[in-house]
Amino acid sequence: MLTVTFPDGSRKDFSSSVSSYDVAHSISPALAKAAMVAEVDGELIDLHAPLPERGEVVLRILAKKDPEALDVMRHSCAHVMAQAVMRLWDGVQLAFGPTTANGFYYDFDLDHSLSEEDFPLIESEMTKIIAADEPFEWLLKPRDEAIELFRGLDQQLKVEHLETGLADEPMVSFYRHGEFLDLCRGKHISSTRHIGKAFKILSVAGAYWKGDAKRQQLQRLYGTAFFDAKELAEHLRQLEEAKKRDHRVIGKQLGLFAVNPTVGSGLVLWLPKGAAIRGILEDYIKGELRRWNYETVYTPHIGRVELYEISGHYPYYSDSQFAPIDMDDGERYLLKPMNCPHHIMIYQSKLRSYRDLPVRLAEFGSVYRYEQSGEVSGMTRVRGFTQDDAHIFCTEDQVTDEFRGCIEMTQNMLAAVGMDQYRVRLGFRDRDSDKYVGNAEIWDRAEAALQKVCEEMHLPDLTIELGEAAFYGPKADFVVTDCIGREWQLGTVQLDYNLPSAMRFGLEYIGADNRPHEPVMIHRAPLGSLERFVGILIEHFAGAFPLWLAPEQIRVLTVSEKSEEYGRQVEKELRAAGFRVAGDYRSQKLGAKIREAQLELIPYMLVVGEKDREAGSVTVRDRIDGDLGPIKVADCMAKFREEVEAKRVRTAAKRGGSCSH
Amino acid sequence: MLTVTFPDGSRKDFSSSVSSYDVAHSISPALAKAAMVAEVDGELIDLHAPLPERGEVVLRILAKKDPEALDVMRHSCAHVMAQAVMRLWDGVQLAFGPTTANGFYYDFDLDHSLSEEDFPLIESEMTKIIAADEPFEWLLKPRDEAIELFRGLDQQLKVEHLETGLADEPMVSFYRHGEFLDLCRGKHISSTRHIGKAFKILSVAGAYWKGDAKRQQLQRLYGTAFFDAKELAEHLRQLEEAKKRDHRVIGKQLGLFAVNPTVGSGLVLWLPKGAAIRGILEDYIKGELRRWNYETVYTPHIGRVELYEISGHYPYYSDSQFAPIDMDDGERYLLKPMNCPHHIMIYQSKLRSYRDLPVRLAEFGSVYRYEQSGEVSGMTRVRGFTQDDAHIFCTEDQVTDEFRGCIEMTQNMLAAVGMDQYRVRLGFRDRDSDKYVGNAEIWDRAEAALQKVCEEMHLPDLTIELGEAAFYGPKADFVVTDCIGREWQLGTVQLDYNLPSAMRFGLEYIGADNRPHEPVMIHRAPLGSLERFVGILIEHFAGAFPLWLAPEQIRVLTVSEKSEEYGRQVEKELRAAGFRVAGDYRSQKLGAKIREAQLELIPYMLVVGEKDREAGSVTVRDRIDGDLGPIKVADCMAKFREEVEAKRVRTAAKRGGSCSH
Repeated sequence: MLTVTFPDGSRKDFSSSVSSYDVAHSISPALAKAAMVAEVDGELIDLHAPLPERGEVVLRILAKKDPEALDVMRHSCAHVMAQAVMRLWDGVQLAFGPTTANGFYYDFDLDHSLSEEDFPLIESEMTKIIAADEPFEWLLKPRDEAIELFRGLDQQLKVEHLETGLADEPMVSFYRHGEFLDLCRGKHISSTRHIGKAFKILSVAGAYWKGDAKRQQLQRLYGTAFFDAKELAEHLRQLEEAKKRDHRVIGKQLGLFAVNPTVGSGLVLWLPKGAAIRGILEDYIKGELRRWNYETVYTPHIGRVELYEISGHYPYYSDSQFAPIDMDDGERYLLKPMNCPHHIMIYQSKLRSYRDLPVRLAEFGSVYRYEQSGEVSGMTRVRGFTQDDAHIFCTEDQVTDEFRGCIEMTQNMLAAVGMDQYRVRLGFRDRDSDKYVGNAEIWDRAEAALQKVCEEMHLPDLTIELGEAAFYGPKADFVVTDCIGREWQLGTVQLDYNLPSAMRFGLEYIGADNRPHEPVMIHRAPLGSLERFVGILIEHFAGAFPLWLAPEQIRVLTVSEKSEEYGRQVEKELRAAGFRVAGDYRSQKLGAKIREAQLELIPYMLVVGEKDREAGSVTVRDRIDGDLGPIKVADCMAKFREEVEAKRVRTAAKRGGSCSH
Repeated sequence: MLTVTFPDGSRKDFSSSVSSYDVAHSISPALAKAAMVAEVDGELIDLHAPLPERGEVVLRILAKKDPEALDVMRHSCAHVMAQAVMRLWDGVQLAFGPTTANGFYYDFDLDHSLSEEDFPLIESEMTKIIAADEPFEWLLKPRDEAIELFRGLDQQLKVEHLETGLADEPMVSFYRHGEFLDLCRGKHISSTRHIGKAFKILSVAGAYWKGDAKRQQLQRLYGTAFFDAKELAEHLRQLEEAKKRDHRVIGKQLGLFAVNPTVGSGLVLWLPKGAAIRGILEDYIKGELRRWNYETVYTPHIGRVELYEISGHYPYYSDSQFAPIDMDDGERYLLKPMNCPHHIMIYQSKLRSYRDLPVRLAEFGSVYRYEQSGEVSGMTRVRGFTQDDAHIFCTEDQVTDEFRGCIEMTQNMLAAVGMDQYRVRLGFRDRDSDKYVGNAEIWDRAEAALQKVCEEMHLPDLTIELGEAAFYGPKADFVVTDCIGREWQLGTVQLDYNLPSAMRFGLEYIGADNRPHEPVMIHRAPLGSLERFVGILIEHFAGAFPLWLAPEQIRVLTVSEKSEEYGRQVEKELRAAGFRVAGDYRSQKLGAKIREAQLELIPYMLVVGEKDREAGSVTVRDRIDGDLGPIKVADCMAKFREEVEAKRVRTAAKRGGSCSH
């Protein structure tokens, strides 16, 4: 006999073999109809798969509203897309087809070069398959048999994967629906019908078989699907808006940054205008660091491999790191993947007393990680980036105040750039897991303290996620919502009981009791990485930076050559007052000069003609509101200064209402 | 018949075989007596070595005043020192014994552990050898015979060197004087007598045979010698003074920087106080960059090896570089040894017009070079350093103005840190050599332009050194004299006709004629490297930084606990006014607190007691001049602000007169 416990705690016994569908049906036919997939003891399972015949299980029936069900449906939709492609073109070699955060893709090797023009054809074929209501069927076969099967189907990539990637598996898992068969661990919805009509093929791109640039290039077809047509429409609108704001496109148009294949993929060159934005942010951050009594340090960009063996980052994370630098004299160095070991060496450079704590060491620390080449993109997915990093070494008693300080500092900084829509995720440990270092009592205290601080601070949409702590301590992540509703994880504050421990660096301070004690470490980076943050800012502002961040704040435009001298005088005055200003004194028509400045998203244009000269004024043109009429130069500067000091965010979108700040 | 031409252009013929000594003697016996060594056609030659019997030679007779003669005498002195050591201890194995910039050393393998106590003994033995007036004799022997000879003498290191290092040489060169014989290319003075009495053994240190850490450790005995006793005395005084100012010692005492073996040799960790100094310098430099219309950029610390193959730095300089990072996917990266290729990529990121030029790209660029482990020391000889780097891309016509700008900027910056004793070395090409790129006409124009600029600017002690240009263009180096008379090469300005050329990066701009032209590149770094510069500054100021650079400018000291509140208020006011200030409110005695602040070289101590509180004043104590009496807080701040803004350098040494600024 099988006893099934439901999420509400109710229980039901079954004496014959049943599937999750049967169980749902036994409760109500409506529930069975709405069911998409099930979760048994925390693991996803196909709706029609048999449950154990005896014992106890906890069962969740997942319907369209559950995110897990959406992901399973998208996986099924990927199979349907692959089937449609195979029906439409001959000789298609199947590669892999997983889901992503917002949809799915499938990689193919085929002679026909897929393009947007093919998408309606594929979608229409998919519609037919969905309407045919084909059930998804699970099969398990010996590996040898699977190889023979795919040989027969002339699916060479599948054969190769079975012979190499899956060489250690005696049995392999398949899914079939209609004539389509694929190696697949699942899970899937019960029938193609449940995919519905809210799906869309989005784009096609190149990808290598198993990410290996030495192998053939495949075609990767991206798509997405929702249970609800409105959700699909909203997603497509967001994609459309995101495309317009793509920081890679705007970054190139405005000359903010460049990535050059000769320098290397994922390695950002900050062009003068982008570097100006970064410099302004760095100066602002430095001011915050002073205000919060941090001390600045500088450390090298490499360290001996031994340093990372002590920290435990080598060889444990070597997959995502640049390879070591091997010297002839036997020395081995690693390009630093994080700054903490170097800051720890600075903490250890002298004996610390409890009176010295907290020690707060800050650095704009450039770190390097070897992201997979397919993952690298613009400024947001890079191989080298600079963190607004700091490490705090403090006593147990100071943890609460320091944590609060880090949260407040992050809030201030996000507010300063107009990103006031965010939520905080507290990552706590899974109490049943043994992967965490440090004793349970300290964890309990730390988690309770963090939660208390966050609640006292009335952080918006605070969530606690169990099992999401780092293995070395609990943490708080800031998830920011941008202008078009996308979420980005930015700042992080993490407690660390691991690196200070005797197993790692064995940090100490001499307490009031004159005995050595172990400090707690806090890792924190309010913006995360400057590359990623500026990339997100470019998209958030669609390149139209607020006055305090704009690389060129003001441009002086002359009506005619007669006013050049006066124009240059105005430019000089503004520069002397600390503004970032340029002048356009060419003999072009004023309209053309304004258009150019407008395209470059310069916040203010100061038009100067002979009348302006006589009046000691300028005719101000606002990037957003257009002509503001003549204003005395001194008043102008006061206005600009006030706007800079308030760090005011004024965007065209605000007037339209789609942007919330 | 041999025709000898002298430096003054006069000529003399000799029909029989003569040595340089004979020639000198034929002119005047006094000249022969003063002669130390000779130079024939630009090559050094022993005074008694025979000249060719026929043909023409240019001959310089070198006397004690010539630097080359001093170097040769020191080499002879090293042999004498080795001889003395062999006389004093049994079983001495000789390694190598070259001269250095300021003296010489010799490496020995011997059981006795040499120490300072042995120096007088060795010196006294050397005095005997010198008095014995032993002539230096040159010998040339077949390598096989040389091996047998050293085997007989049981000199195993020499045997090994003959069998490995010199394996390709059929004949090898020796020098002998008295019983001492060594493998040596020379040259030497004619007799030990000319060494005189102005020599000194300085120190002993460990060194590896052939620099190989896997081989046995040797003892390296350092010494120096001068022709003039006064020069030796001055040198010893300078060494003594330098020892007191050693930036490695002061840097540790004041907590400015640390080097940690786990991070790596030659990799500097800037501790908070050192980082504060660097930060102040960087802010100052940024101000200068804005004033001179530079644009700031940021670039990654690595680049693909291909980038350095194009620049020609790889594999050409690979001996002094960190090894490449070899990735599994076939990509190879180099830790950047210089910033120019990255800045060139930024120049090339868009099409440039003559109207855009000059483009001036600046960056605090961290670069990495693998100095030999024996050469690495403190902050001045490191493996990673940050240059105050910039590259200017300009037209031929702009070279003069840009060069002048770079020189002026360097002058301003050196003046700001009180280093106003410097000379400029212009490095021009050797017209007879073919190692230079670019055509002769451009070189002539460039050299003439640089010389004209330097002369117009009345640069102090301007020297032109032929053959000292980089292979890619002429350059100007700033050689600074510090407080105790030592010279340091700091800033450099270099023209470059190589990297922009079609053979390298093929840089272009579109000229007024609408056709592509090649820009000229200028590499310039006014301070050179921040690590080295700050290291030198520490020694220059003996750690007592002027007010504008001091990491902690002011310390508030309370007379008793009663005045703590007032002290904290003063501290807060000063901090709000932008000063770097700390407070010492401990219940220690005032005298102890003053002593501590004085040892930490804090420029100003503000003592506060109850009387001060009542009067709204502080009792100012100057690090140099001591008690200045009570001063109103506002007046104090005005005084400090004026001193900071003037970047005034006030040192105790100034009053003593030994420091010239």
